[in-house]
Amino acid sequence: MAHDVLKSIADTLEARREASPQSSYVASLFHKGEDAILKKVAEEAAETLMASKDKDRLHLVREVADLWFHSLVLLTWHGLRPEDVIMELKRREGISGIDEKASRNGQE
Amino acid sequence: MAHDVLKSIADTLEARREASPQSSYVASLFHKGEDAILKKVAEEAAETLMASKDKDRLHLVREVADLWFHSLVLLTWHGLRPEDVIMELKRREGISGIDEKASRNGQE
Amino acid sequence: MAHDVLKSIADTLEARREASPQSSYVASLFHKGEDAILKKVAEEAAETLMASKDKDRLHLVREVADLWFHSLVLLTWHGLRPEDVIMELKRREGISGIDEKASRNGQE
Amino acid sequence: MAHDVLKSIADTLEARREASPQSSYVASLFHKGEDAILKKVAEEAAETLMASKDKDRLHLVREVADLWFHSLVLLTWHGLRPEDVIMELKRREGISGIDEKASRNGQE
Repeated sequence: MAHDVLKSIADTLEARREASPQSSYVASLFHKGEDAILKKVAEEAAETLMASKDKDRLHLVREVADLWFHSLVLLTWHGLRPEDVIMELKRREGISGIDEKASRNGQE
Repeated sequence: MAHDVLKSIADTLEARREASPQSSYVASLFHKGEDAILKKVAEEAAETLMASKDKDRLHLVREVADLWFHSLVLLTWHGLRPEDVIMELKRREGISGIDEKASRNGQE
Repeated sequence: MAHDVLKSIADTLEARREASPQSSYVASLFHKGEDAILKKVAEEAAETLMASKDKDRLHLVREVADLWFHSLVLLTWHGLRPEDVIMELKRREGISGIDEKASRNGQE
Repeated sequence: MAHDVLKSIADTLEARREASPQSSYVASLFHKGEDAILKKVAEEAAETLMASKDKDRLHLVREVADLWFHSLVLLTWHGLRPEDVIMELKRREGISGIDEKASRNGQE
Protein backbone atom coordinates (compact mmCIF):
# COMPACT_ATOMS: atom_id res chain seq x y z
CA MET A 1 0.00 0.00 0.00
CA ALA A 2 2.69 2.49 1.03
CA HIS A 3 4.45 1.86 -2.26
CA ASP A 4 1.32 2.66 -4.24
CA VAL A 5 0.64 5.80 -2.20
CA LEU A 6 4.19 7.22 -2.39
CA LYS A 7 4.49 6.26 -6.08
CA SER A 8 1.10 7.78 -6.85
CA ILE A 9 1.99 11.05 -5.06
CA ALA A 10 5.27 11.20 -6.99
CA ASP A 11 3.40 10.67 -10.27
CA THR A 12 1.05 13.53 -9.41
CA LEU A 13 3.97 15.77 -8.42
CA GLU A 14 5.75 15.07 -11.71
CA ALA A 15 2.62 15.97 -13.63
CA ARG A 16 2.39 19.32 -11.78
CA ARG A 17 6.09 20.11 -12.28
CA GLU A 18 5.37 22.04 -15.46
CA ALA A 19 1.78 23.11 -14.72
CA SER A 20 0.73 26.74 -14.39
CA PRO A 21 1.66 28.19 -10.95
CA GLN A 22 -2.00 29.09 -10.45
CA SER A 23 -3.25 25.52 -10.96
CA SER A 24 -2.31 24.08 -7.54
CA TYR A 25 -0.29 24.57 -4.34
CA VAL A 26 2.43 22.21 -5.60
CA ALA A 27 2.65 23.85 -9.04
CA SER A 28 3.07 27.19 -7.26
CA LEU A 29 5.82 25.72 -5.04
CA PHE A 30 7.71 24.33 -8.06
CA HIS A 31 7.40 27.71 -9.72
CA LYS A 32 8.89 29.50 -6.69
CA GLY A 33 11.84 27.12 -6.90
CA GLU A 34 14.31 25.15 -4.79
CA ASP A 35 14.68 27.61 -1.88
CA ALA A 36 10.90 27.77 -1.36
CA ILE A 37 10.75 23.94 -1.29
CA LEU A 38 13.68 23.77 1.16
CA LYS A 39 12.01 26.35 3.45
CA LYS A 40 8.93 24.08 3.58
CA VAL A 41 11.07 21.01 4.42
CA ALA A 42 12.73 22.98 7.26
CA GLU A 43 9.39 24.35 8.47
CA GLU A 44 7.76 20.89 8.57
CA ALA A 45 10.77 19.47 10.43
CA ALA A 46 10.40 22.26 13.02
CA GLU A 47 6.66 21.57 13.34
CA THR A 48 7.41 17.86 13.77
CA LEU A 49 9.66 18.79 16.73
CA MET A 50 6.95 20.97 18.26
CA ALA A 51 4.17 18.36 17.83
CA SER A 52 6.43 15.78 19.48
CA LYS A 53 7.20 18.06 22.44
CA ASP A 54 3.46 18.74 22.78
CA LYS A 55 2.85 14.94 22.98
CA ASP A 56 0.10 15.54 20.41
CA ARG A 57 0.11 12.27 18.45
CA LEU A 58 -2.52 13.20 15.86
CA HIS A 59 -0.69 16.46 15.17
CA LEU A 60 2.60 14.55 14.95
CA VAL A 61 1.20 12.18 12.28
CA ARG A 62 0.05 15.18 10.24
CA GLU A 63 3.41 16.94 10.57
CA VAL A 64 5.41 13.81 9.59
CA ALA A 65 3.04 13.45 6.60
CA ASP A 66 3.82 17.10 5.69
CA LEU A 67 7.55 16.43 6.10
CA TRP A 68 7.46 13.32 3.88
CA PHE A 69 5.23 15.08 1.33
CA HIS A 70 7.61 18.03 0.98
CA SER A 71 10.55 15.59 0.81
CA LEU A 72 8.76 14.06 -2.20
CA VAL A 73 8.38 17.53 -3.74
CA LEU A 74 12.13 18.08 -3.24
CA LEU A 75 12.99 14.67 -4.77
CA THR A 76 10.77 15.47 -7.78
CA TRP A 77 12.49 18.85 -8.13
CA HIS A 78 15.79 16.95 -8.50
CA GLY A 79 14.34 14.32 -10.87
CA LEU A 80 14.42 11.67 -8.13
CA ARG A 81 11.76 9.17 -7.03
CA PRO A 82 10.56 7.80 -3.65
CA GLU A 83 11.73 4.41 -4.97
CA ASP A 84 15.33 5.73 -4.76
CA VAL A 85 14.92 6.46 -1.05
CA ILE A 86 13.09 3.18 -0.36
CA MET A 87 15.87 1.27 -2.16
CA GLU A 88 18.48 3.02 0.03
CA LEU A 89 16.48 2.16 3.20
CA LYS A 90 16.09 -1.45 2.02
CA ARG A 91 19.83 -1.73 1.37
CA ARG A 92 20.57 -0.50 4.92
CA GLU A 93 17.92 -2.79 6.44
CA GLY A 94 19.69 -5.75 4.90
CA ILE A 95 23.05 -4.66 6.30
CA SER A 96 21.53 -3.81 9.67
CA GLY A 97 19.70 -7.18 9.80
CA ILE A 98 22.99 -8.98 9.25
CA ASP A 99 24.83 -6.76 11.76
CA GLU A 100 22.16 -7.31 14.35
CA LYS A 101 22.28 -11.09 13.93
CA ALA A 102 26.07 -11.01 14.10
CA SER A 103 26.01 -8.91 17.26
CA ARG A 104 23.34 -11.14 18.81
CA ASN A 105 25.43 -14.21 18.07
CA GLY A 106 28.46 -12.41 19.50
CA GLN A 107 26.63 -11.84 22.77
CA GLU A 108 25.65 -15.49 23.20
CA MET B 1 7.77 -2.92 -1.84
CA ALA B 2 7.83 0.41 0.03
CA HIS B 3 5.16 -0.90 2.34
CA ASP B 4 7.23 -3.94 3.19
CA VAL B 5 10.38 -1.85 3.71
CA LEU B 6 8.80 0.85 5.92
CA LYS B 7 6.73 -1.73 7.84
CA SER B 8 9.76 -3.99 8.26
CA ILE B 9 11.92 -1.10 9.56
CA ALA B 10 9.15 -0.15 12.01
CA ASP B 11 8.98 -3.78 13.22
CA THR B 12 12.73 -3.79 13.80
CA LEU B 13 12.56 -0.42 15.60
CA GLU B 14 9.81 -1.69 17.91
CA ALA B 15 11.89 -4.74 18.77
CA ARG B 16 14.85 -2.50 19.71
CA ARG B 17 12.70 -0.11 21.77
CA GLU B 18 13.42 -2.04 24.97
CA ALA B 19 16.79 -3.56 24.02
CA SER B 20 20.00 -2.79 25.88
CA PRO B 21 21.46 0.63 24.86
CA GLN B 22 24.69 -1.17 23.95
CA SER B 23 23.01 -3.54 21.47
CA SER B 24 22.58 -1.13 18.54
CA TYR B 25 22.60 2.51 17.40
CA VAL B 26 18.79 2.65 17.54
CA ALA B 27 18.57 1.07 20.99
CA SER B 28 21.08 3.68 22.20
CA LEU B 29 19.00 6.47 20.63
CA PHE B 30 15.79 5.21 22.31
CA HIS B 31 17.69 5.06 25.60
CA LYS B 32 18.86 8.70 25.27
CA GLY B 33 15.23 9.70 24.78
CA GLU B 34 12.96 12.04 22.85
CA ASP B 35 15.27 15.08 22.67
CA ALA B 36 18.11 12.99 21.20
CA ILE B 37 15.72 11.62 18.54
CA LEU B 38 14.43 15.13 17.75
CA LYS B 39 18.00 16.44 17.41
CA LYS B 40 18.64 13.73 14.79
CA VAL B 41 15.44 14.65 12.87
CA ALA B 42 16.55 18.32 12.85
CA GLU B 43 20.11 17.38 11.86
CA GLU B 44 18.97 15.20 8.95
CA ALA B 45 16.60 17.94 7.74
CA ALA B 46 19.54 20.39 7.76
CA GLU B 47 21.73 17.91 5.87
CA THR B 48 18.91 17.41 3.32
CA LEU B 49 18.98 21.19 2.72
CA MET B 50 22.74 21.18 2.27
CA ALA B 51 22.77 18.17 -0.11
CA SER B 52 20.08 19.88 -2.20
CA LYS B 53 22.03 23.15 -2.38
CA ASP B 54 25.13 21.14 -3.39
CA LYS B 55 23.09 19.59 -6.26
CA ASP B 56 24.50 16.25 -5.05
CA ARG B 57 21.71 13.82 -5.93
CA LEU B 58 23.24 10.68 -4.45
CA HIS B 59 23.92 12.55 -1.19
CA LEU B 60 20.38 13.90 -1.25
CA VAL B 61 18.89 10.38 -1.53
CA ARG B 62 20.98 9.28 1.48
CA GLU B 63 19.95 12.34 3.54
CA VAL B 64 16.24 11.91 2.76
CA ALA B 65 16.62 8.23 3.72
CA ASP B 66 18.20 9.38 7.01
CA LEU B 67 15.36 11.88 7.53
CA TRP B 68 12.65 9.26 6.90
CA PHE B 69 14.48 6.70 9.04
CA HIS B 70 14.70 9.05 12.02
CA SER B 71 11.04 10.04 11.48
CA LEU B 72 10.26 6.33 11.87
CA VAL B 73 12.29 6.23 15.11
CA LEU B 74 10.27 9.22 16.38
CA LEU B 75 6.96 7.59 15.38
CA THR B 76 7.99 4.38 17.19
CA TRP B 77 8.92 6.43 20.26
CA HIS B 78 5.32 7.73 20.31
CA GLY B 79 3.79 4.28 19.66
CA LEU B 80 2.89 5.26 16.08
CA ARG B 81 3.42 3.39 12.80
CA PRO B 82 4.43 4.39 9.24
CA GLU B 83 0.98 3.10 8.23
CA ASP B 84 -0.53 6.07 10.17
CA VAL B 85 1.45 8.54 8.03
CA ILE B 86 0.76 6.66 4.77
CA MET B 87 -2.97 6.63 5.63
CA GLU B 88 -2.86 10.42 6.19
CA LEU B 89 -1.03 10.93 2.86
CA LYS B 90 -3.54 8.63 1.08
CA ARG B 91 -6.47 10.56 2.56
CA ARG B 92 -5.02 13.85 1.27
CA GLU B 93 -4.22 12.36 -2.14
CA GLY B 94 -7.88 11.44 -2.51
CA ILE B 95 -9.01 14.95 -1.58
CA SER B 96 -6.37 16.52 -3.78
CA GLY B 97 -7.32 14.23 -6.71
CA ILE B 98 -10.95 15.36 -6.40
CA ASP B 99 -9.94 19.03 -5.98
CA GLU B 100 -7.70 18.83 -8.98
CA LYS B 101 -10.43 17.31 -11.13
CA ALA B 102 -12.93 19.91 -9.87
CA SER B 103 -10.52 22.75 -10.60
CA ARG B 104 -9.76 21.32 -14.04
CA ASN B 105 -13.47 21.10 -14.79
CA GLY B 106 -13.88 24.63 -13.51
CA GLN B 107 -11.25 25.86 -15.97
CA GLU B 108 -12.92 24.26 -18.97
CA MET C 1 27.10 50.05 20.28
CA ALA C 2 25.89 46.44 20.00
CA HIS C 3 24.73 46.64 23.60
CA ASP C 4 22.67 49.73 22.90
CA VAL C 5 21.15 48.20 19.73
CA LEU C 6 20.21 44.83 21.28
CA LYS C 7 18.96 46.51 24.47
CA SER C 8 16.95 49.03 22.50
CA ILE C 9 15.36 46.30 20.33
CA ALA C 10 14.47 44.34 23.49
CA ASP C 11 12.90 47.47 25.00
CA THR C 12 10.78 47.94 21.87
CA LEU C 13 9.78 44.25 21.87
CA GLU C 14 8.69 44.45 25.50
CA ALA C 15 6.56 47.50 24.73
CA ARG C 16 4.83 45.61 21.89
CA ARG C 17 4.26 42.47 23.99
CA GLU C 18 0.82 43.66 25.04
CA ALA C 19 0.00 45.87 22.06
CA SER C 20 -2.90 45.17 19.69
CA PRO C 21 -2.06 42.42 17.15
CA GLN C 22 -2.89 44.87 14.38
CA SER C 23 -0.37 47.47 15.55
CA SER C 24 2.81 45.83 14.22
CA TYR C 25 4.40 42.63 12.87
CA VAL C 26 5.91 41.85 16.27
CA ALA C 27 2.66 42.46 18.17
CA SER C 28 0.94 40.07 15.74
CA LEU C 29 3.68 37.46 16.31
CA PHE C 30 3.33 37.74 20.12
CA HIS C 31 -0.43 37.38 19.72
CA LYS C 32 -0.05 34.16 17.64
CA GLY C 33 2.09 32.77 20.45
CA GLU C 34 5.13 30.62 21.15
CA ASP C 35 4.80 28.14 18.25
CA ALA C 36 4.57 30.96 15.69
CA ILE C 37 7.73 32.54 17.16
CA LEU C 38 9.55 29.17 17.13
CA LYS C 39 8.56 28.58 13.48
CA LYS C 40 10.17 31.92 12.61
CA VAL C 41 13.39 31.00 14.50
CA ALA C 42 13.53 27.68 12.57
CA GLU C 43 12.75 29.40 9.27
CA GLU C 44 15.48 32.02 9.73
CA ALA C 45 17.99 29.31 10.69
CA ALA C 46 17.12 27.46 7.46
CA GLU C 47 17.49 30.66 5.43
CA THR C 48 20.85 31.30 7.10
CA LEU C 49 21.99 27.85 5.87
CA MET C 50 20.78 28.58 2.34
CA ALA C 51 22.40 32.04 2.18
CA SER C 52 25.68 30.51 3.36
CA LYS C 53 25.54 27.73 0.73
CA ASP C 54 24.81 30.41 -1.92
CA LYS C 55 27.98 32.27 -0.79
CA ASP C 56 25.78 35.38 -0.75
CA ARG C 57 27.36 37.46 2.00
CA LEU C 58 24.90 40.35 1.97
CA HIS C 59 21.99 37.90 2.14
CA LEU C 60 23.77 36.03 4.95
CA VAL C 61 24.09 39.21 7.05
CA ARG C 62 20.35 39.85 6.61
CA GLU C 63 19.42 36.27 7.53
CA VAL C 64 21.63 36.25 10.65
CA ALA C 65 20.03 39.59 11.59
CA ASP C 66 16.59 37.93 11.15
CA LEU C 67 17.74 34.95 13.24
CA TRP C 68 19.03 37.16 16.07
CA PHE C 69 15.94 39.38 15.90
CA HIS C 70 13.55 36.44 16.26
CA SER C 71 15.76 35.04 19.05
CA LEU C 72 15.16 38.35 20.82
CA VAL C 73 11.40 37.98 20.26
CA LEU C 74 11.60 34.48 21.79
CA LEU C 75 13.62 35.75 24.78
CA THR C 76 11.07 38.54 25.35
CA TRP C 77 8.25 35.97 25.16
CA HIS C 78 9.93 34.13 28.07
CA GLY C 79 10.61 37.33 30.04
CA LEU C 80 14.34 37.14 29.25
CA ARG C 81 16.76 39.81 28.01
CA PRO C 82 19.66 39.91 25.52
CA GLU C 83 21.80 40.81 28.53
CA ASP C 84 21.19 37.26 29.85
CA VAL C 85 22.65 35.76 26.67
CA ILE C 86 25.54 38.24 26.53
CA MET C 87 26.36 37.43 30.18
CA GLU C 88 26.41 33.71 29.35
CA LEU C 89 28.70 34.35 26.35
CA LYS C 90 30.96 36.55 28.49
CA ARG C 91 31.18 33.87 31.15
CA ARG C 92 32.26 31.30 28.55
CA GLU C 93 34.72 33.70 26.93
CA GLY C 94 36.46 34.05 30.26
CA ILE C 95 36.65 30.29 30.72
CA SER C 96 37.72 29.77 27.13
CA GLY C 97 40.36 32.50 27.46
CA ILE C 98 41.81 30.73 30.48
CA ASP C 99 41.58 27.31 28.77
CA GLU C 100 43.27 28.64 25.69
CA LYS C 101 46.11 30.17 27.71
CA ALA C 102 46.53 26.95 29.68
CA SER C 103 46.56 24.86 26.52
CA ARG C 104 49.03 27.24 24.88
CA ASN C 105 51.30 27.01 27.93
CA GLY C 106 50.95 23.26 27.81
CA GLN C 107 52.17 23.18 24.23
CA GLU C 108 55.26 25.26 24.95
CA MET D 1 29.21 45.57 27.16
CA ALA D 2 27.55 43.47 24.44
CA HIS D 3 29.68 45.21 21.87
CA ASP D 4 32.81 44.30 23.72
CA VAL D 5 31.70 40.69 24.22
CA LEU D 6 30.57 40.02 20.62
CA LYS D 7 33.57 41.90 19.20
CA SER D 8 35.94 40.11 21.53
CA ILE D 9 34.50 36.68 20.60
CA ALA D 10 34.83 37.55 16.90
CA ASP D 11 38.47 38.59 17.46
CA THR D 12 39.16 35.25 19.16
CA LEU D 13 37.40 33.34 16.37
CA GLU D 14 39.45 35.12 13.71
CA ALA D 15 42.64 34.22 15.55
CA ARG D 16 41.63 30.54 15.62
CA ARG D 17 40.62 30.50 11.93
CA GLU D 18 44.07 29.32 10.88
CA ALA D 19 45.11 27.54 14.09
CA SER D 20 45.83 23.82 14.25
CA PRO D 21 42.60 21.73 14.38
CA GLN D 22 43.86 20.15 17.59
CA SER D 23 44.28 23.50 19.39
CA SER D 24 40.60 24.17 20.22
CA TYR D 25 36.97 23.23 19.51
CA VAL D 26 36.57 26.23 17.21
CA ALA D 27 39.78 25.56 15.29
CA SER D 28 38.57 22.00 14.74
CA LEU D 29 35.18 23.29 13.52
CA PHE D 30 36.85 25.70 11.05
CA HIS D 31 39.01 22.82 9.82
CA LYS D 32 35.96 20.59 9.19
CA GLY D 33 34.52 23.42 7.10
CA GLU D 34 31.28 25.17 6.20
CA ASP D 35 28.90 22.17 6.36
CA ALA D 36 30.09 21.27 9.87
CA ILE D 37 29.48 24.87 11.00
CA LEU D 38 26.01 24.91 9.37
CA LYS D 39 25.11 21.62 11.06
CA LYS D 40 25.93 23.23 14.42
CA VAL D 41 23.78 26.31 13.61
CA ALA D 42 20.85 24.00 12.72
CA GLU D 43 21.42 21.86 15.82
CA GLU D 44 21.47 24.87 18.16
CA ALA D 45 18.30 26.25 16.54
CA ALA D 46 16.60 22.88 17.16
CA GLU D 47 17.79 22.86 20.77
CA THR D 48 16.49 26.41 21.21
CA LEU D 49 13.05 25.16 20.09
CA MET D 50 13.18 22.25 22.54
CA ALA D 51 14.32 24.40 25.49
CA SER D 52 11.49 26.83 24.77
CA LYS D 53 8.89 24.04 24.62
CA ASP D 54 10.27 22.70 27.93
CA LYS D 55 9.74 26.18 29.47
CA ASP D 56 13.30 25.81 30.81
CA ARG D 57 14.51 29.41 30.88
CA LEU D 58 18.08 28.73 32.02
CA HIS D 59 18.46 26.09 29.30
CA LEU D 60 16.96 28.51 26.77
CA VAL D 61 19.54 31.20 27.60
CA ARG D 62 22.34 28.64 27.11
CA GLU D 63 20.89 27.44 23.77
CA VAL D 64 20.43 30.98 22.41
CA ALA D 65 24.03 31.68 23.49
CA ASP D 66 25.09 28.54 21.53
CA LEU D 67 23.05 29.70 18.52
CA TRP D 68 24.57 33.20 18.55
CA PHE D 69 28.06 31.78 19.14
CA HIS D 70 27.83 29.44 16.13
CA SER D 71 26.35 32.29 14.05
CA LEU D 72 29.54 34.20 14.90
CA VAL D 73 31.63 31.20 13.78
CA LEU D 74 29.70 31.19 10.48
CA LEU D 75 30.15 34.95 10.01
CA THR D 76 33.89 34.58 10.65
CA TRP D 77 34.02 31.72 8.13
CA HIS D 78 32.64 34.16 5.53
CA GLY D 79 34.94 37.01 6.57
CA LEU D 80 32.05 38.88 8.20
CA ARG D 81 31.80 40.56 11.62
CA PRO D 82 29.08 40.82 14.30
CA GLU D 83 29.24 44.58 13.62
CA ASP D 84 27.74 43.87 10.15
CA VAL D 85 24.71 42.18 11.75
CA ILE D 86 24.35 44.84 14.47
CA MET D 87 24.49 47.55 11.79
CA GLU D 88 21.70 45.78 9.85
CA LEU D 89 19.60 45.48 13.04
CA LYS D 90 20.24 49.15 13.86
CA ARG D 91 19.19 50.20 10.36
CA ARG D 92 15.91 48.29 10.71
CA GLU D 93 15.30 49.64 14.21
CA GLY D 94 15.47 53.14 12.82
CA ILE D 95 13.03 52.32 10.03
CA SER D 96 10.76 50.42 12.38
CA GLY D 97 10.83 53.28 14.91
CA ILE D 98 9.76 55.71 12.19
CA ASP D 99 7.13 53.29 10.84
CA GLU D 100 5.74 52.76 14.28
CA LYS D 101 5.48 56.48 14.92
CA ALA D 102 3.89 57.05 11.50
CA SER D 103 1.38 54.24 12.07
CA ARG D 104 0.59 55.56 15.54
CA ASN D 105 0.01 59.05 14.12
CA GLY D 106 -2.18 57.49 11.46
CA GLN D 107 -4.35 55.90 14.11
CA GLU D 108 -4.89 59.09 16.03
